[in-house]
Amino acid sequence: MQNKFGKAIKMTNQGALIIISGFSGAGKGTLVNKLISEHDRFALSISMTTRNPREGEVNGREYFFVSKEEFEKTIAEDGLLEHACYVGNYYGTPKAYVKEQMQKGKDVILEIEVQGALQIKEKYPDAILMFVTPPSIEELNRRLHGRGTESEEVIEKRLTRAKEEVHLIEKYDYIVVNDHLDSCVQNVISYIDAAKMMPLRQVDFVELLKEELSKL
Amino acid sequence: MQNKFGKAIKMTNQGALIIISGFSGAGKGTLVNKLISEHDRFALSISMTTRNPREGEVNGREYFFVSKEEFEKTIAEDGLLEHACYVGNYYGTPKAYVKEQMQKGKDVILEIEVQGALQIKEKYPDAILMFVTPPSIEELNRRLHGRGTESEEVIEKRLTRAKEEVHLIEKYDYIVVNDHLDSCVQNVISYIDAAKMMPLRQVDFVELLKEELSKL
Repeated sequence: MQNKFGKAIKMTNQGALIIISGFSGAGKGTLVNKLISEHDRFALSISMTTRNPREGEVNGREYFFVSKEEFEKTIAEDGLLEHACYVGNYYGTPKAYVKEQMQKGKDVILEIEVQGALQIKEKYPDAILMFVTPPSIEELNRRLHGRGTESEEVIEKRLTRAKEEVHLIEKYDYIVVNDHLDSCVQNVISYIDAAKMMPLRQVDFVELLKEELSKL
Repeated sequence: MQNKFGKAIKMTNQGALIIISGFSGAGKGTLVNKLISEHDRFALSISMTTRNPREGEVNGREYFFVSKEEFEKTIAEDGLLEHACYVGNYYGTPKAYVKEQMQKGKDVILEIEVQGALQIKEKYPDAILMFVTPPSIEELNRRLHGRGTESEEVIEKRLTRAKEEVHLIEKYDYIVVNDHLDSCVQNVISYIDAAKMMPLRQVDFVELLKEELSKL
């Protein structure tokens, strides 16, 4: 879109903050991987955590693994976009990397759960919140069981969580129905492009129109 | 999208109410014509007015031309989505046709000015408001003068109006930059499709998710 705007685009070329949440089993991970690996315009935000790395996890790829002291220091320095505590471990989103990538014009994707997403929306109303769901709960149920790798207990926990999350969908900007992965990726991109043309994300462009009109 | 939703889509298959406003000279008319003539999914709302038909204007095509009594009767019966009075004449949007087309699944386009648009948004928050602008005010100025058919006085009036309208852009859902007509048409369609995936326009789908989850 860069060449379409003339002067104005130069002022609105900053990337957006894209939050992806959704039901466990909705296919968020695959979706995010495809967005990142196939589209250069996106950058992935990597969370910071105090939990121990699991086998195969690499520091700086899945997470930044840090000590409790280091995490709390980052909180104290206001270095996180959001953070939360689960089962005794901290999880959070480092601010610096996100801001740096956005300034470069990248749309930064954060895959985080609902509470963190809403924390961010409160502080950054121009963040674009997407909630990923299968086309039906029947399908969600099928996908959760179909994995075959999880115990009934784990599946139950995920369903319980989905029952809480469903009541917060209204707070999201877009519902992303993940039926076919390819069209889902295209839809996400098109929702983002649309969201960028909302006045709250085109403040500089609107200001420029006002300014130029006032001169006539 | 119909086949992607399974059960849910049946409940959200109603068309949307699309409001198109914008600066005089932004190319709204051409844009709306192209949307309507090339895309079967759209229906055009025709306004009702008490002003006299101009040469070449046909009742039921440009406007429904009615008497003052008839117009006031329609107001009294709550038969208009919005109405306003200019230079002693009434202008308004008949509700019945819009509702009928939306129920058939058509996205109904209303090309109306800012005050009417905001009246509608207040009553129907799920209406999708689009504000059409050229890529710059320089270009707007060029287009206004370039027509060559208008007197300086008329151009001045339009600029004065633009100066008022620019302060209401923030109330719109999307800014539509009309540079190249074809890409502009595609953008409008894509903003509408995105807007339809916002929770406020997917109330039935979200309710269905809640309901089905509660059964598990």
